[in-house]
Amino acid sequence: MDIVIKNGTVLTMDSQMRRIDKGYVAVKDGQIVQIGSSEQLVGTQALEVIDANGGIIMPGLINSHTHASMTLFRGIADDLPLMEWLNNHIFPAEAKLTPHWVYTGAKLACAEMILSGTTCFCDMYLFEAEVAKAAYDSSMRAVVGEVLYDFPSPCYGEIKQGFEYVAAMMDKWKSKSGILDQSQIYSNRDKNDLNISSNSLITVAVEPHSTYLCNPELLQKAAELARKNSSPLIIHVAETLSESAQIKEKYGVTPAKFLADIGVLGSNLVACHSVHLTEEDMELYQKFDVKVAHCPESNMKLASGVAPVPRMLEKGICVGLGTDGCASNNDLDLFLEMDTAAKLHKVFSMNPEVLNAETALKMATINGARALGLDSITGSIEVGKRADIIVVNTSAPHMVPMYNPYSHLVYSASGNDVSTSIIDGKLVMKDRKLLTIDVESVMDEVQEIAGLIVK
Amino acid sequence: MDIVIKNGTVLTMDSQMRRIDKGYVAVKDGQIVQIGSSEQLVGTQALEVIDANGGIIMPGLINSHTHASMTLFRGIADDLPLMEWLNNHIFPAEAKLTPHWVYTGAKLACAEMILSGTTCFCDMYLFEAEVAKAAYDSSMRAVVGEVLYDFPSPCYGEIKQGFEYVAAMMDKWKSKSGILDQSQIYSNRDKNDLNISSNSLITVAVEPHSTYLCNPELLQKAAELARKNSSPLIIHVAETLSESAQIKEKYGVTPAKFLADIGVLGSNLVACHSVHLTEEDMELYQKFDVKVAHCPESNMKLASGVAPVPRMLEKGICVGLGTDGCASNNDLDLFLEMDTAAKLHKVFSMNPEVLNAETALKMATINGARALGLDSITGSIEVGKRADIIVVNTSAPHMVPMYNPYSHLVYSASGNDVSTSIIDGKLVMKDRKLLTIDVESVMDEVQEIAGLIVK
Repeated sequence: MDIVIKNGTVLTMDSQMRRIDKGYVAVKDGQIVQIGSSEQLVGTQALEVIDANGGIIMPGLINSHTHASMTLFRGIADDLPLMEWLNNHIFPAEAKLTPHWVYTGAKLACAEMILSGTTCFCDMYLFEAEVAKAAYDSSMRAVVGEVLYDFPSPCYGEIKQGFEYVAAMMDKWKSKSGILDQSQIYSNRDKNDLNISSNSLITVAVEPHSTYLCNPELLQKAAELARKNSSPLIIHVAETLSESAQIKEKYGVTPAKFLADIGVLGSNLVACHSVHLTEEDMELYQKFDVKVAHCPESNMKLASGVAPVPRMLEKGICVGLGTDGCASNNDLDLFLEMDTAAKLHKVFSMNPEVLNAETALKMATINGARALGLDSITGSIEVGKRADIIVVNTSAPHMVPMYNPYSHLVYSASGNDVSTSIIDGKLVMKDRKLLTIDVESVMDEVQEIAGLIVK
Repeated sequence: MDIVIKNGTVLTMDSQMRRIDKGYVAVKDGQIVQIGSSEQLVGTQALEVIDANGGIIMPGLINSHTHASMTLFRGIADDLPLMEWLNNHIFPAEAKLTPHWVYTGAKLACAEMILSGTTCFCDMYLFEAEVAKAAYDSSMRAVVGEVLYDFPSPCYGEIKQGFEYVAAMMDKWKSKSGILDQSQIYSNRDKNDLNISSNSLITVAVEPHSTYLCNPELLQKAAELARKNSSPLIIHVAETLSESAQIKEKYGVTPAKFLADIGVLGSNLVACHSVHLTEEDMELYQKFDVKVAHCPESNMKLASGVAPVPRMLEKGICVGLGTDGCASNNDLDLFLEMDTAAKLHKVFSMNPEVLNAETALKMATINGARALGLDSITGSIEVGKRADIIVVNTSAPHMVPMYNPYSHLVYSASGNDVSTSIIDGKLVMKDRKLLTIDVESVMDEVQEIAGLIVK
């Protein structure tokens, strides 16, 4: 074995929600090869043995929607109306971005995410090739995509160049993986057939911004490209009331219905936010198996609204959990996001039984993986899946006593309780020390960039 | 000097919200004696010099409402309707409580609170003398009070004995403090006149449970005792819709109006929760200068509702922040509570400008102190106040870059970022090591108690 993690409660998050007390997980060639109770472990040799010290061994968390490099703008402007925040603070700051700044901001985000138990994230931003590089350099799993819209971006002049940029990213990460093409990354393939190299870390998605910043032609072209490459298609949908009103005025329908009308809804579509949905919208999501990335903290902070998640779950819609970017959260801690999600929907529906701890944890693990089309390789601890595993320390006052690990993970833990993290079989954090990122120099550099941003 | 904390951004939370970059705070005999910029520090001698390393030096947080010993029930039951949760899980568990268990649970809570930056808490529970002892032994500042209701409690037979228990606590902590009587603890006294000993840590309050578990005679007797002793009067008010409906049926009015009618409202009253208030209720609070302890996470988790905090703040009502007990939160981290409070009210009012970061921080510091009648001795960093001070580390990925410390404290930090804590001039945590609590043995003992609770 390469790595054995022992002496912990294994929460597999598999379809039976199997739990093994005093269990272990063994990893070889990046893959999970054994799961069992520690008694069975006698005689097993491993290069690296990690003692969970009675803590929790679980799949790494999956951030279904973020803009990693926006760490650069953390706390630059808060508590403002959306348009003032965007036009007077975020857009002017983004106009100054350079590819290297985007890389550095994403690197900081990777450090923060690994430190808080996230092993995979889905990103949308400018100069996204830099985000892919930052994730790869940090040994993080990521779904990456250049944001596409009708007008020129700091990254490309016309939209044609935007699509070329996406195609170049697809080429780069396809060729790099050697054995692997996009269609293998994104599909419900038989996981046993695949010998995925470490280059499978990066999946390139197609990411048109939204129905209000993309015309129908752009959206359809993006959907076609995603279909052709079996890639995820990522888009913001119905985040705010004003967006919905704008689309209603322009097209006479809701954003979701508009996407259905132009043929863009499909099982590879991740509809981020999806706050203001009608019953009909949700039926369309159900019909087309559209996935949702739910970002409760960002939606709260920007006063966007509360997504009808309990209703979506009733309909069997797959909902993952995302932090959104750091300018509207302002952290990337999915443990706190689970807590907020579970509590927000209880009070908003005045029903303490909606969205229990297990459901919140599924959203942040296996359902996030499913949303991104990566559930055959990550999101749960199962033999044959890639080893994306975290260890959560439970020897701290706020994690004592232990009646129910699901409860503690959602309602008591924060990302800081994660002691160890393994991504794709590689140890990326041990005892809270980052092993793939020189975090001090990244923090220094980001602070310098921040000085230039506000200058 | 006894202690000097230097090389940090001092956020005083005083009435001018003064901020000193590269500042220091000096402590002598438990009191804050100097505040200034580090340049002025040349030549100052101190027994203990704490380097904030460019972090934030700020007042310790004040938890305005909790049931500390309920750490024993953390995660024992979640995601249930209130009555099922109370009757089938919490009440049966509480029936088993012993004084020593209450002490041990409170000790665990003190450890968790100190580790997350809280220096003062207001408690209501059974066997409260044990909570007072746990706080005193941990060197924490606390407002403590035995819960009083019409029926026998595990601590007392009839209510007469409940009042005797409170009187005994008042005697004990009054006599212990020597120079200090209750009327000095609770008042807007001139802080310069007072030479408070370390025994001023414990303030005894009078704490009838609620309008639905206490008859009018009990409530009036409690109010009278509190008035006589200039003590805080702590009560749950309008936490749930069913409570309000019950009081409406019984007395024909809202809980707040009922308290006004029987003469219980006053400036020493802390109305915990206050979720379901009418405009008239808030006018009564305003008229009588009633204080509110707002517990958003508990109210969310139990699906109780959202308190009209923005409206209360508009009316100038003093609102502190509380975590409530660990059975309904499930942690005691006030940093996370600030974050939730700020976000919840934004989305609930669909207005991103309500309850900004500074306001959330005031609720958890100076306004919490004011709510508990302790604002002349704690809640801000001012010369002459007792030294309740924490240092927040900002050298972590989720706290970088630094544009605005208020934003980071509310939207990015968690209690885990607190490195050092001083209460009443005593160092109780340094570099995250607890100095007044043997936390390992407390955790072990709580885990043993938990085994007996579920047996």
